[in-house]
Amino acid sequence: MATLQLLEYDQMPAASQAVIDDIKATRGVDDVNNFWKVLAHQPDNLKRTWDSLKAIMGPGELDPLVKEMLYIAVSIANNCDYCIHSHTASAFSKGMTSGQYEELIAIVGMAHQTNAMANAMKVPVDAMFDKG
Amino acid sequence: MATLQLLEYDQMPAASQAVIDDIKATRGVDDVNNFWKVLAHQPDNLKRTWDSLKAIMGPGELDPLVKEMLYIAVSIANNCDYCIHSHTASAFSKGMTSGQYEELIAIVGMAHQTNAMANAMKVPVDAMFDKG
Amino acid sequence: MATLQLLEYDQMPAASQAVIDDIKATRGVDDVNNFWKVLAHQPDNLKRTWDSLKAIMGPGELDPLVKEMLYIAVSIANNCDYCIHSHTASAFSKGMTSGQYEELIAIVGMAHQTNAMANAMKVPVDAMFDKG
Amino acid sequence: MATLQLLEYDQMPAASQAVIDDIKATRGVDDVNNFWKVLAHQPDNLKRTWDSLKAIMGPGELDPLVKEMLYIAVSIANNCDYCIHSHTASAFSKGMTSGQYEELIAIVGMAHQTNAMANAMKVPVDAMFDKG
Amino acid sequence: MATLQLLEYDQMPAASQAVIDDIKATRGVDDVNNFWKVLAHQPDNLKRTWDSLKAIMGPGELDPLVKEMLYIAVSIANNCDYCIHSHTASAFSKGMTSGQYEELIAIVGMAHQTNAMANAMKVPVDAMFDKG
Amino acid sequence: MATLQLLEYDQMPAASQAVIDDIKATRGVDDVNNFWKVLAHQPDNLKRTWDSLKAIMGPGELDPLVKEMLYIAVSIANNCDYCIHSHTASAFSKGMTSGQYEELIAIVGMAHQTNAMANAMKVPVDAMFDKG
Repeated sequence: MATLQLLEYDQMPAASQAVIDDIKATRGVDDVNNFWKVLAHQPDNLKRTWDSLKAIMGPGELDPLVKEMLYIAVSIANNCDYCIHSHTASAFSKGMTSGQYEELIAIVGMAHQTNAMANAMKVPVDAMFDKG
Repeated sequence: MATLQLLEYDQMPAASQAVIDDIKATRGVDDVNNFWKVLAHQPDNLKRTWDSLKAIMGPGELDPLVKEMLYIAVSIANNCDYCIHSHTASAFSKGMTSGQYEELIAIVGMAHQTNAMANAMKVPVDAMFDKG
Repeated sequence: MATLQLLEYDQMPAASQAVIDDIKATRGVDDVNNFWKVLAHQPDNLKRTWDSLKAIMGPGELDPLVKEMLYIAVSIANNCDYCIHSHTASAFSKGMTSGQYEELIAIVGMAHQTNAMANAMKVPVDAMFDKG
Repeated sequence: MATLQLLEYDQMPAASQAVIDDIKATRGVDDVNNFWKVLAHQPDNLKRTWDSLKAIMGPGELDPLVKEMLYIAVSIANNCDYCIHSHTASAFSKGMTSGQYEELIAIVGMAHQTNAMANAMKVPVDAMFDKG
Repeated sequence: MATLQLLEYDQMPAASQAVIDDIKATRGVDDVNNFWKVLAHQPDNLKRTWDSLKAIMGPGELDPLVKEMLYIAVSIANNCDYCIHSHTASAFSKGMTSGQYEELIAIVGMAHQTNAMANAMKVPVDAMFDKG
Repeated sequence: MATLQLLEYDQMPAASQAVIDDIKATRGVDDVNNFWKVLAHQPDNLKRTWDSLKAIMGPGELDPLVKEMLYIAVSIANNCDYCIHSHTASAFSKGMTSGQYEELIAIVGMAHQTNAMANAMKVPVDAMFDKG
C-alpha cells in the first residue's frame, strides 16, 4: 500500500524516463525496482537521488560489498522495510556469504545493545577520543 | 554527566575486576575506556556484554576494519555519542583512511535519505526480494 | 494484525462512544478511522488523545495544511505506517499539491541525510545559536 | 544550550504560574525542574503536558516505580538526555535498587538487540499472536 | 517476507537444534516461535541470543510481567513489529490486565511526547540529577 | 567534541573553498556555520550536500519558513542537536513567531505520542488510504 501508484516506463514524465534510462544502463538491467517506479512521480527527487546514489555507491576506496553492508546496517537501524530487502538482496548478489551475513547481523544487534547501554547511563566520552 | 560514577579498578567488585583483566589482556592496554568503568557497577551486564563483544568483534569472515565501520554506521543511526566517538577512534587506529571515512559518511547519509523516502511513500517490496 | 480488535460503535464502552460522537461531529464524518476504533478499548487514552489532538490541530497561527505536513514529517521519521498513510491522505484532502508533496519528501529526505552527517561527526553547535 | 531561556517563577506568564503552582503542590516541592521552566514560555503546551502527565503517572493499576522504569526505557530508546536523567533520578528516589537498575539496563539492551535482529531479517509474525 | 526461510527442526544444523531443545525445555513448549526458526540459520547468533535472553528474562529482582512490559516499551519505541506482537502476547499470558495495558500504552505515548519536547528545546539537565 | 577539526577557510582544500564561496554568496554571509567547516574536510560530501540543500531549500511551492519548520520537525525526531539549533535559529530569523513555535512543538510532541500508540497496537491501515 503505497502513497503513490507505481509508474511503468510509459506512464512516466519524460524527465523521469531519462533518469530511468541511466539507471538501466548503469546497472545493465531491463527494468528498475519499485523504489524508482514510485519516485518517478517526482522527477527532481528522482534525478537528485539517483545522481547521488550513483556517485556514492560507485567505485571508490571501499569495496562495493562493504558499501552494501553499510547500507544494510543503517537500513536496519532505521527499520526501512524496503531498503533492508533491496540492499540485502544486492549484497547477496555481490557475493556476501552466509557467514558474513551472520556476522553482519551479530554486529548490528550488538551495536544496538551497547548503543542503548551507553545512552542509558550517559557514559562520558573519554578525552582521548577528542579530535575536534 | 553519567547516571553512575566511573569506577577505577580498585573500586570495582571482584567479579568486575576479572572481566576488566580480560579486556586489558585481550586488547593489550593498561586501562579501559569509560564505558567499562561505568558498566563495572553491574558485574553481570559487564560480563555478558564483554563476552559477546569479544566473540563478535574477534576474528571472523569480515575484516576487523569493516566490523568497526559497521559499528559506526549503527551508532550514527542511533545517535550514540559515546559509541560514535569510541568506534570512530578505533576505526582510525585500525587504518581507516580519510577517503574511506568520507565514503562511510556519504553512505550513511545517503542511506538515511533513501530510508526516509522509501518509508515516506511506503514503497512495496519487489516480489523478487522475497526469500522467506 | 492489531494487538486489539477493532471495535465498531455498538461494541464500545459508553465513555468511548461519547468521544467518538465528538470526533464525528467535529470532523463532519459518519464513521471514524481504525486508529480510534482500536483506541476505543481504552476510554481514558481515547479521551486524552482526542482532546489534545483536537486542540493542537484546530485553528491557530499555523495553516491547517502546514500542520498536517509537520505531522507527516514526524511520522516518516518515526516510521509509523498508520500515521504516514492517514496524515498523507489528510494533507491531500486539504489541498496539498503534487509539487508540495515532492518538496516535502525532498526536505524530509535531506534532513535525514544532514541529521546523520552532523550526528556522525558530532559537529559542535555554533555559539551564535545559544539562546538558553 | 536551550532554544529558549529558563524562566524563573516571577518571569512566567500568569497562565504558566498557575500550572507551576499545581506541580509544586502535587509533588510537594519548592521548585520545579528545568523542563517546566523552559515549557513555561508556552502556557498551552505547559498545561496540556502537565495535566496528561499528572493523570498518567498518578495512582493506577501499575506501581509508581514500574511507571518510572517504563518511562526510562522509552527515554533511552529515544535517547532523550534530559528525560533519562530526570526519570532515572526519580526512579531511584522511589526506591529502585541497584539490582533492579542492572536488570532494567540489561532488558533495554537486550530488547534493542533482538529488535534489530528481528527487523533485520524481517521475521514474519506468528499467526498465534494475531488478535486484531 | 523474511530475508531467510523459516527452518523447521529437521532442517536446522545440529548446533541450532541443541539451542532449540533448550528453549523448548525452558519454556515447556512443543514448538518455538518464528524468530528462533529464522535465527536457526546462524547457530552462533542463535546460541548467544538465547543464552543472554534466558539469563536476563529469568528470575531476578524484577517481576517477570514487569520485564515483559519493559520489553514491550522498547519494542514500540524501535517499532519492531515482530517484537511488539510476541512480547505483548507474552505479557497477556503472564497476567497483564486490560487496565495495565492501557496504562502501559499511555506511559509509552506520554514518554514519546515529552522526549520529543525536551529534545526539541534542548532543555539543560538539572545539576541535581548529576551522579557521575 | 567533533570527530574532525573545524577548518577555517585558509585551511580548506581548494575544492571545498569553492563550495564555501557559493554558500557565502547565496546566503549573503561573511562566514559559514560549523557544519560546513567540518564537512570541508570532505570536498565531495561538501559539494553534493550543499548542491542538494541549495536546490531543496530554495524557491518552490512551499514557503521558506514552512520548509525550515519541516526541517526542525525531522531534526527533533532524529534528535540531531546541531540541526535542531541551526534550523530553529534559522526559522526565527525568517519570522517564526512565538505562537508558531509553540504550535510546532505541540504538533511534534503530539505526533510522537500517536505514532507510538499506533505502532504499539499495530493499527491496520484503513483501506480508504490506499493509493498504491
